[in-house]
Amino acid sequence: MISNQKHNWRNRIHEVIYEADTPSGKLFDILLLIFILVSIVLVMLESVVSIDEKYHELLHIGEWIVTILFSIEYILRIISVKKPFKYIFSSFGIIDFLSTIPMYLSFFFVGSQALVTLRALRLLRVFRILKLARYLGASNHLKASLVASRVKIMVFLFAVMITSVIFGTIMYLVEGEANGFDNIPKSIYWCVVTLTTVGFGDIAPQTALGQFITTFIMILGYGIIAVPTGIVSAEYVRSGQKEDAENEALKTNGNSPSDNITIHLNSQHCSNCHASDHKDNSDYCYNCGNELNPLL
Amino acid sequence: MISNQKHNWRNRIHEVIYEADTPSGKLFDILLLIFILVSIVLVMLESVVSIDEKYHELLHIGEWIVTILFSIEYILRIISVKKPFKYIFSSFGIIDFLSTIPMYLSFFFVGSQALVTLRALRLLRVFRILKLARYLGASNHLKASLVASRVKIMVFLFAVMITSVIFGTIMYLVEGEANGFDNIPKSIYWCVVTLTTVGFGDIAPQTALGQFITTFIMILGYGIIAVPTGIVSAEYVRSGQKEDAENEALKTNGNSPSDNITIHLNSQHCSNCHASDHKDNSDYCYNCGNELNPLL
Amino acid sequence: MISNQKHNWRNRIHEVIYEADTPSGKLFDILLLIFILVSIVLVMLESVVSIDEKYHELLHIGEWIVTILFSIEYILRIISVKKPFKYIFSSFGIIDFLSTIPMYLSFFFVGSQALVTLRALRLLRVFRILKLARYLGASNHLKASLVASRVKIMVFLFAVMITSVIFGTIMYLVEGEANGFDNIPKSIYWCVVTLTTVGFGDIAPQTALGQFITTFIMILGYGIIAVPTGIVSAEYVRSGQKEDAENEALKTNGNSPSDNITIHLNSQHCSNCHASDHKDNSDYCYNCGNELNPLL
Amino acid sequence: MISNQKHNWRNRIHEVIYEADTPSGKLFDILLLIFILVSIVLVMLESVVSIDEKYHELLHIGEWIVTILFSIEYILRIISVKKPFKYIFSSFGIIDFLSTIPMYLSFFFVGSQALVTLRALRLLRVFRILKLARYLGASNHLKASLVASRVKIMVFLFAVMITSVIFGTIMYLVEGEANGFDNIPKSIYWCVVTLTTVGFGDIAPQTALGQFITTFIMILGYGIIAVPTGIVSAEYVRSGQKEDAENEALKTNGNSPSDNITIHLNSQHCSNCHASDHKDNSDYCYNCGNELNPLL
Repeated sequence: MISNQKHNWRNRIHEVIYEADTPSGKLFDILLLIFILVSIVLVMLESVVSIDEKYHELLHIGEWIVTILFSIEYILRIISVKKPFKYIFSSFGIIDFLSTIPMYLSFFFVGSQALVTLRALRLLRVFRILKLARYLGASNHLKASLVASRVKIMVFLFAVMITSVIFGTIMYLVEGEANGFDNIPKSIYWCVVTLTTVGFGDIAPQTALGQFITTFIMILGYGIIAVPTGIVSAEYVRSGQKEDAENEALKTNGNSPSDNITIHLNSQHCSNCHASDHKDNSDYCYNCGNELNPLL
Repeated sequence: MISNQKHNWRNRIHEVIYEADTPSGKLFDILLLIFILVSIVLVMLESVVSIDEKYHELLHIGEWIVTILFSIEYILRIISVKKPFKYIFSSFGIIDFLSTIPMYLSFFFVGSQALVTLRALRLLRVFRILKLARYLGASNHLKASLVASRVKIMVFLFAVMITSVIFGTIMYLVEGEANGFDNIPKSIYWCVVTLTTVGFGDIAPQTALGQFITTFIMILGYGIIAVPTGIVSAEYVRSGQKEDAENEALKTNGNSPSDNITIHLNSQHCSNCHASDHKDNSDYCYNCGNELNPLL
Repeated sequence: MISNQKHNWRNRIHEVIYEADTPSGKLFDILLLIFILVSIVLVMLESVVSIDEKYHELLHIGEWIVTILFSIEYILRIISVKKPFKYIFSSFGIIDFLSTIPMYLSFFFVGSQALVTLRALRLLRVFRILKLARYLGASNHLKASLVASRVKIMVFLFAVMITSVIFGTIMYLVEGEANGFDNIPKSIYWCVVTLTTVGFGDIAPQTALGQFITTFIMILGYGIIAVPTGIVSAEYVRSGQKEDAENEALKTNGNSPSDNITIHLNSQHCSNCHASDHKDNSDYCYNCGNELNPLL
Repeated sequence: MISNQKHNWRNRIHEVIYEADTPSGKLFDILLLIFILVSIVLVMLESVVSIDEKYHELLHIGEWIVTILFSIEYILRIISVKKPFKYIFSSFGIIDFLSTIPMYLSFFFVGSQALVTLRALRLLRVFRILKLARYLGASNHLKASLVASRVKIMVFLFAVMITSVIFGTIMYLVEGEANGFDNIPKSIYWCVVTLTTVGFGDIAPQTALGQFITTFIMILGYGIIAVPTGIVSAEYVRSGQKEDAENEALKTNGNSPSDNITIHLNSQHCSNCHASDHKDNSDYCYNCGNELNPLL
């Protein structure tokens, strides 16, 4: 494996930043998560007037430190991959960018630093460290069957929408502005609040007829809430049964099901095509054939 | 196929209006949906005082344009079918009529144009374009089993009703007018609000005894909410298992299940009896034997 | 069959009142249900101040007419059975008594006529007429399995109770009287309101710490609500599978499952021991051997 | 079995306190539960101002009596076991300590006696008396499968958390302090209130945009509520099916399933290692081999 000094240096960074299986990679990811959490807490504290008045300077400095660190990380991520645009336009790349830029924008637009909370999305990285992806991968059946029932879910949402529009308009006509149903969009909002059993109570029917119709809407909502739950439950049951059946089949074929689980995937990312979840001891990327950096 | 000029002209219209598989039919349906959505948005905007004050003329003109277009469509629908009454008294025919008439009624009755929002029901046509009907048809098992459990659902609604009447009366006696439980119907309304876990809070128990009884009602509601969800979940699971079993049976009979799915139904409507969902390449209506117009 | 004039006269009344399968019995039951509904509506209207002021006399007279009719019915029910105490202390007997007595008590205690709404319980008779009992009987599996899971349900209620007491006390300490958490019982009431996702909002946490704990309680409630639904769903699924398996077994044994359903039970009540649900064409009571009155 | 007087005396106490199968042990446990309930009611009553003003002395005395009895019980529990630290640091030991100490602390810290309500946790002992443990043990399948789906539950909680942070921040930006969304943590609290369908209504969106976003959050919450219910339902169904399958297997193996249930566990605790749930007629502890006291 021939590689010049610079190439080697980039490989190092790539490994630390993009992999979670090596000690240095793990340390990096944990530090990153801590900084993400710290930055979210900073933004939250800043929004609390009483705290912000006392510690404004401190919070502002902390915020800038985190932002600069994130900026460095973002730049390192770009320069350490061979095809930087693959990363930049990947979902994580966009989130990383959006969670770094607000502080710089705050020079131009007041209030834009509140968007920093989008950093919460970066917490999704936790899945990589905890290797949850492997567990989640086990529920492929579930994902497939949820996709299969997406039409049912769409029909359900459509039913909620039409019901809300119809009953929202009726309630607007029955209750009117005097009782808080100022206009049809607000009535529709109230109708969704009622159908979903949230029931804020900021708007509530005052007339006897309005209360009668509301009774009807609530019992309807009671029935509607059963639909998504029923769909999800049924899909969980079915996906579980299929898994059981497959495990059964594996057993009778003489293969212990544990054989199946011992295929280990590591968190290595190909520095060329950015594909991840390579099998342990892979020397070449399963996606583009690029030679993978050996785990140090 | 002998047909005079006029007959041909009507067939054309029939095809454009009633079918969604030809390019012109698809275009018509999409335009129709856009106009329906526009008309609903217009009515909503009109109900918002601040917007209505500024753009009253514009909204009114837009409303009339949509109404006139819908009127023309309604008339074309009637004249292009051989048996117009079949259409007029079909559920879609009634909805089309009710969503067109309110604007004309608004000459005589103030406020009746708000009923225009019934046009939302016309959105159900979207199912036809998206060919969702085919997917829905796949869940025939589900429909059948829900019908089978209708007695359970009735018993459930009956239980909610009796529980509400009994506890509504008790709460009226315990709390009384001073605490917002003005009369028994209002107490029953409050009881349904509580049992369904909506909980607006416009009326809430103030006495210790009332709060104690409310605690009981809420835990009861907790148990009751489980019933419809349980029924629907169980039916979904069962209908799913039946489908699986049938697919299994098909496979073992040497027929691949995909054979089953390749039976395509198109959205053609018979111009004589108004039946739809003919098989592709059908030349005659499966319901009345009338010759179908060939798809252009 | 030897019977004197008086015996015959009592048999007649017994048949009309206690049976729902003969034309006169059916008519009686339907009239009874109408009177029960009328009496409930009367009590409700009386509780609405504006209506009561206008039509007080009318409502009062109507109430007395219904009460006198119910009294006559109650007396006839007692004299037409051989063992009146069996009826008096049956659950229906007690409900009939409690729904008749309040008007008479209103001479002595003001407000006691509101208890008349207990008549709603008499609506349970509707099940007899609609022969729903037969359908309900079909869900014997369900009942059995719900009984089997009663320990799980008890454990669940116990968990809700202990959770409410603990968190109610904590919230009382955190929020205190100033924020509406006046005392521990009221805090516990609030905690149940929150755990069950009812959320009236008459009491709501005001301090930051209180809101943080509330967040925790709500997510807990989210998990707890899953338990009864899960239990009921699972039992429905299991009872459904058992029924399917039995129907399957019946089919393979050469007996069509419809044979099973053709065992008709009628609504005749034995005038001696008050047992009901005799098989059609039974001449003697299956419970005490008393000769049944032939259906006229 | 050689034992001196003192040893015998300690064994006696051990048996009365730690066992629920002997008459004296059962009596002790029932008395204990009554005192726990009494002490909880006392604390509750004390927190109600109107009652406390009238009966302050009485409540205070009652509270001290219970505390002293609990102290004696705690000391007896310690001296009657061979390895007291095993008990002291067991979960029940810690609860017993925490529920006894607050009254003594109240000499030093005002208000600390409210913690006495932690005694509610002692009610968990009821499971021992009612021998519910045996029933719960029957649902080992359930426990195992819930553990198996703990990753799904974690992912779900994580999703709720991230969703709340993101939408909480958005709502803070949209609604602002003027409409009650004072700061981001409060907005997140409101978001959890809405997602869980609790909906207190102490904070509610006032702007049109805020209400539109809320509609979206509520429908999302509707979908999210389906997830834990679906998981729990599916696990109940699966654990039920496994039990059925095992019962089936037992039957076909010629063993009646009732053989299984007749393995009786008693509530005896080993005085050496504190292990419980010994099989009836065991002479030695299954855990440490220590000779068990014969049941008197």
